[in-house]
Amino acid sequence: MSPAEVTVAERVARIETFIKEVVIPFETDPRNGGHGPDESLVRELRQLARAAGLLTPQRTPDGKLLSHRDTAQLFRAAGYSPLGPVALNIMAPDEGNMYLLERVASQAHKARFLAPLVAGVARSAFLMTEPDGGAGSDPSMLQTTARLEGDEWVINGRKTFSTGADGAALAIVMARTGSTATMFLVDLPTRGLRIERILDTIDGSMPGGHAVVKLEELRVPAHQVLGALHEGFRYAQVRLAPARLTHCMRWWGAARRAHEVAADYACRRQAFGKPIIEHEGVGFMLADNLIDLKQTELMIDWCAGVLDEGRSGTSESSMTKVAVSEALFRVADRCVQVLGGTGVTRDTIVQQVFRELRAFRIYDGPSEVHRWSLAKKIQRNSQR
Amino acid sequence: MSPAEVTVAERVARIETFIKEVVIPFETDPRNGGHGPDESLVRELRQLARAAGLLTPQRTPDGKLLSHRDTAQLFRAAGYSPLGPVALNIMAPDEGNMYLLERVASQAHKARFLAPLVAGVARSAFLMTEPDGGAGSDPSMLQTTARLEGDEWVINGRKTFSTGADGAALAIVMARTGSTATMFLVDLPTRGLRIERILDTIDGSMPGGHAVVKLEELRVPAHQVLGALHEGFRYAQVRLAPARLTHCMRWWGAARRAHEVAADYACRRQAFGKPIIEHEGVGFMLADNLIDLKQTELMIDWCAGVLDEGRSGTSESSMTKVAVSEALFRVADRCVQVLGGTGVTRDTIVQQVFRELRAFRIYDGPSEVHRWSLAKKIQRNSQR
Amino acid sequence: MSPAEVTVAERVARIETFIKEVVIPFETDPRNGGHGPDESLVRELRQLARAAGLLTPQRTPDGKLLSHRDTAQLFRAAGYSPLGPVALNIMAPDEGNMYLLERVASQAHKARFLAPLVAGVARSAFLMTEPDGGAGSDPSMLQTTARLEGDEWVINGRKTFSTGADGAALAIVMARTGSTATMFLVDLPTRGLRIERILDTIDGSMPGGHAVVKLEELRVPAHQVLGALHEGFRYAQVRLAPARLTHCMRWWGAARRAHEVAADYACRRQAFGKPIIEHEGVGFMLADNLIDLKQTELMIDWCAGVLDEGRSGTSESSMTKVAVSEALFRVADRCVQVLGGTGVTRDTIVQQVFRELRAFRIYDGPSEVHRWSLAKKIQRNSQR
Amino acid sequence: MSPAEVTVAERVARIETFIKEVVIPFETDPRNGGHGPDESLVRELRQLARAAGLLTPQRTPDGKLLSHRDTAQLFRAAGYSPLGPVALNIMAPDEGNMYLLERVASQAHKARFLAPLVAGVARSAFLMTEPDGGAGSDPSMLQTTARLEGDEWVINGRKTFSTGADGAALAIVMARTGSTATMFLVDLPTRGLRIERILDTIDGSMPGGHAVVKLEELRVPAHQVLGALHEGFRYAQVRLAPARLTHCMRWWGAARRAHEVAADYACRRQAFGKPIIEHEGVGFMLADNLIDLKQTELMIDWCAGVLDEGRSGTSESSMTKVAVSEALFRVADRCVQVLGGTGVTRDTIVQQVFRELRAFRIYDGPSEVHRWSLAKKIQRNSQR
Repeated sequence: MSPAEVTVAERVARIETFIKEVVIPFETDPRNGGHGPDESLVRELRQLARAAGLLTPQRTPDGKLLSHRDTAQLFRAAGYSPLGPVALNIMAPDEGNMYLLERVASQAHKARFLAPLVAGVARSAFLMTEPDGGAGSDPSMLQTTARLEGDEWVINGRKTFSTGADGAALAIVMARTGSTATMFLVDLPTRGLRIERILDTIDGSMPGGHAVVKLEELRVPAHQVLGALHEGFRYAQVRLAPARLTHCMRWWGAARRAHEVAADYACRRQAFGKPIIEHEGVGFMLADNLIDLKQTELMIDWCAGVLDEGRSGTSESSMTKVAVSEALFRVADRCVQVLGGTGVTRDTIVQQVFRELRAFRIYDGPSEVHRWSLAKKIQRNSQR
Repeated sequence: MSPAEVTVAERVARIETFIKEVVIPFETDPRNGGHGPDESLVRELRQLARAAGLLTPQRTPDGKLLSHRDTAQLFRAAGYSPLGPVALNIMAPDEGNMYLLERVASQAHKARFLAPLVAGVARSAFLMTEPDGGAGSDPSMLQTTARLEGDEWVINGRKTFSTGADGAALAIVMARTGSTATMFLVDLPTRGLRIERILDTIDGSMPGGHAVVKLEELRVPAHQVLGALHEGFRYAQVRLAPARLTHCMRWWGAARRAHEVAADYACRRQAFGKPIIEHEGVGFMLADNLIDLKQTELMIDWCAGVLDEGRSGTSESSMTKVAVSEALFRVADRCVQVLGGTGVTRDTIVQQVFRELRAFRIYDGPSEVHRWSLAKKIQRNSQR
Repeated sequence: MSPAEVTVAERVARIETFIKEVVIPFETDPRNGGHGPDESLVRELRQLARAAGLLTPQRTPDGKLLSHRDTAQLFRAAGYSPLGPVALNIMAPDEGNMYLLERVASQAHKARFLAPLVAGVARSAFLMTEPDGGAGSDPSMLQTTARLEGDEWVINGRKTFSTGADGAALAIVMARTGSTATMFLVDLPTRGLRIERILDTIDGSMPGGHAVVKLEELRVPAHQVLGALHEGFRYAQVRLAPARLTHCMRWWGAARRAHEVAADYACRRQAFGKPIIEHEGVGFMLADNLIDLKQTELMIDWCAGVLDEGRSGTSESSMTKVAVSEALFRVADRCVQVLGGTGVTRDTIVQQVFRELRAFRIYDGPSEVHRWSLAKKIQRNSQR
Repeated sequence: MSPAEVTVAERVARIETFIKEVVIPFETDPRNGGHGPDESLVRELRQLARAAGLLTPQRTPDGKLLSHRDTAQLFRAAGYSPLGPVALNIMAPDEGNMYLLERVASQAHKARFLAPLVAGVARSAFLMTEPDGGAGSDPSMLQTTARLEGDEWVINGRKTFSTGADGAALAIVMARTGSTATMFLVDLPTRGLRIERILDTIDGSMPGGHAVVKLEELRVPAHQVLGALHEGFRYAQVRLAPARLTHCMRWWGAARRAHEVAADYACRRQAFGKPIIEHEGVGFMLADNLIDLKQTELMIDWCAGVLDEGRSGTSESSMTKVAVSEALFRVADRCVQVLGGTGVTRDTIVQQVFRELRAFRIYDGPSEVHRWSLAKKIQRNSQR
């Protein structure tokens, strides 16, 4: 084992301990409500992670990103509590935004926009998805426009599922510039960007929730174009596969937690004269969880390895996203069932994990869109 | 078509209209919160149903219960809104309690306890299920006890998932009397019966939610034994199959609603150049919904027919409960998926239906318990 | 119960007895090989059914067809052995061909072509499906053509999955006549119709198997047009829904048989100290079989009722075909699994039932085509 | 890439070419019948593999076994044709028998019994499983007994699913010796060991098929005890996990083949105006195949890695066997469905792969037994 590997294993162990001993007790904190932890809880958790040396752990002290495979180990450990990614500053959309800025932003933009994110003192949003009729699974339907007036871009449109926009200091806004698209860095709050409402979604782990945002004559200085003009669609691809994959990593940890809660319950709870795990109807569900957790772990590591090789990983991350989101949902669903009545209450974390994973089957592209693009790829390959 | 059938068909049509025109607008009423409608909303809905002549529609004006098959038609129509059963006074647990009282209560008890329920002016609870270690899927684990002191029964124990206990005027309490069990009629509120907390469950359609209840030296006059002493387990069976089945009926209506919402969305929403229903990935989900809705409708009617023949319907209602709860959940799950991001929000009723149906897979016995008893029956039959 | 119903119940009972006592012993007859029973076995079975008064039981003595619902009861009973439909002369494609002739043939054609089929002394084939590139799930791709020369039609083309063509006395041939299609009655054997080969299929219950047929300058007298010219596509619809449904009926009986074999085995076979049915992993599979068998029975009866009302039943039979073929396959698959090693051998009928049902998921339209047409219907309905 | 890895990659490439160019043409050879290839075909294929330097490729020229991970790559490539493992001398049960002998046999036994197997000039059988009532999923039910008479063991009992016994030169026989079990090396044919019949199973790739064998006063010299006396159950474990895993490897190759056949068909076959792969109902099935093939490949490699670490891999191989056998069956089932009518015929290899994989869900322990033991393990772990 190389020194670096030792470090990763050590960091994983430290994260595991931190989550169990420090983070989990906050899960029942009243500040952790229906739409995720509030700002004061976020600050408190981050302070604890910072003190433990675990904040933004996907970066080395000198600012390099760990490999995707190493990241997978850390993030799975962090996901063991839905608050873990928030505490460690590795939750969506910030983690993906940091990754994107690292990859495509200028040094000046990194200093100004990336640094506070890495330090965990500011949050960000990624404004791409639009309401029905606009950009969603089909990005070509992008409706938001940016027009140049003097040295300012003027943006108009509406965005939805803008995770974390409420309370964010930075928004990365995707808008149409002529026949293509560009990303803009927008300081928040600002005139011209109004949060219409927070969606009342089935999940509830992300600070700020998911917002519907109105962009009305939003003015952005020309020097706040992210990277290069007209590169929006390409940058979306740069962010896409890794962001999808870190979602898989984090939720894997949550599903593992749900499984352990359910297994523990099944070993203690008696019915018809024996612990319910000795009823095959229950025991088989837990056995299937073991299998699903292992398979998804392997898929995540495989896809991470593809990204580490410098490949785009578009198909691989589609395969992984479908397989992982569906398998982890099955795991959570079985855990609810094993717990019986207790499973549908918030008395354990299982109910929340179930709700989060239902949403995950849609976030970052519903399974159907991924299957569609995989089928296209099979067809293309056959025509060669 | 016989005159009676015409009447049922007419009542169904009137209920359908009432739900669509009168009840559905209340779904977004702020009084319809996370744990079901509050008491003022319940009263208002009931007043409207009363005025429309649709309150407690499973009973004829002269107090007779409709057949189970006719009831199925009315209840499916009422379930089209999660508020429909509340409005029409046919929701759990009141509907099952009324059924039980009708079948086993004395005339005096009917006059005093049943009449206000039928009139829709009081709510009731059924206190059978106990926390872990007590009566649940295995009723023989009943821990709550009743001892006779003079002409009073003194009851001690704890109950959970006591639906509607908060706000109810009547509790039917199941307690151990020697080696068997008895049901008691308890006026609420009363000293000795304390609501410890309302469970924070994934579903949220039932007034009062689901309570954990502490029974501490609860004193009940001897004349408030329901029916006969020591008949508690038998009465539980009397209530069991029909109550299970009316759950199926009501949730069928909700699943149909979700399907119609999803189908409508799929016909309007465009992606990749055409309405998404023309994408087979979406269209096939809706086709499967059609099949599942039809199959479950047929199962409900079949089981209702078995009950109408005067048979216990234990196995038939187990088969129906498993098949219907699992199929309707699949329907709701597909509807969420068809709606994409919108599906995980409360912007449509689909998200709530999904949550309710997840709970329904556990309420009234998780699928595993029913499959277990069906397997036992197969074995018994083979040994004859 | 009306007299007619008594008669149906009695006929069902007689068929059940006949299948168990007379037909089942022939299942292991060496003449019942891989591609179905040979002609001598067919004759022997028919003679026994004739003697028992059970031949062609869907017709009353005076030549009227029973209702679809009554037929369902008889055919399910007959399907209990894969040889049952052959013995009773109700197997595909003859049963569907008899139905079609009864509905659309002239009196003269009935006397000449239908009578021997009804008497069970001749077999027939239905030549519609064509090899890849021709008519299959998409009938508009029909390639076989008929041109009129004098008072003869001259037919050219190729057909596949021509069930029972080998050994048949009659072929109903679908061919393009101009922009539409016509059906022709062809006496077999005949010059111009050559059986290229018998497909080696996974199923093996149909006499003659499934043939690939070459039609080369096949000459048919003009008076042997079935019904009216250019009505081929419409007649195909007349035959379609009922034929699909009788397939469901027959295979339901076979799946019930498989279930009973598996249940019996599970009650006798011991493992880990108890009968394997007491292992929930086994018992739950059998419980699910019970549910699937009941649901499919109800779907068949429902669809039969729709046809009895004189409706086309296109959508209803699509729904039923998908639901029944997939559920019965699951039943058979579970039975194989319950039987363990024995399940994959021909030591019981279960293996054959499994193979037949795999094929049934494709015959008469794979599930995907039915789901596609159901989705189309949902879209049409929404546009009204 | 290390030199060894290059060698493995090269060997994989050579095997792939050999299978495609040399082996696949023999699939339609009449000697490759319903119960696997006959002896002359086995000899011919082996001669070709020997000439190509690909016989018994899991061993290096100096007689060392490759790692399990390297073996996985070779065996997956070989499984691309059901005849591949036969040709390369890596099929069950010989491969597992060679592995077992390598691990536990004396040098003398290796020279006499292992050498001809390695050379591919003899076949062997593994006689452990017994008919109903004897050793199956529950090995403690072993009924076959061995008693010592002078310097001979006398064995009595019956075995079933004795793969390849018909035609084998060696049988490894498991028999009870007192309260434990011993394995014996038996030269075939021999008096006292009689093949009662060959089971007519749904699969058909293994030379000699699966036999029912009668052992009647079978006499084995005392020096033909395999390894040590009373170590039978332990040796069974030594063989178990690797043998299970090589099954997964070989069938993975067959499933990949089926997928490629189906994908190719779907790209060429038109329906409703476009290639059927453009119908999502078809395209999604192929996308799911991609995912299942990748997940199973990863599971196999993971489990192989566990074995390479010297661990027993009992649980890991149970997890892998369940996941792989069920996923590959789904792949094959989808391929049948994609091919439509063609899928149920032997016109492509897909039908055979479907049948083989149905059997694989039972061979080496049905999924239910593995889930049962995994649940036990979860319970044990929780009690620590």
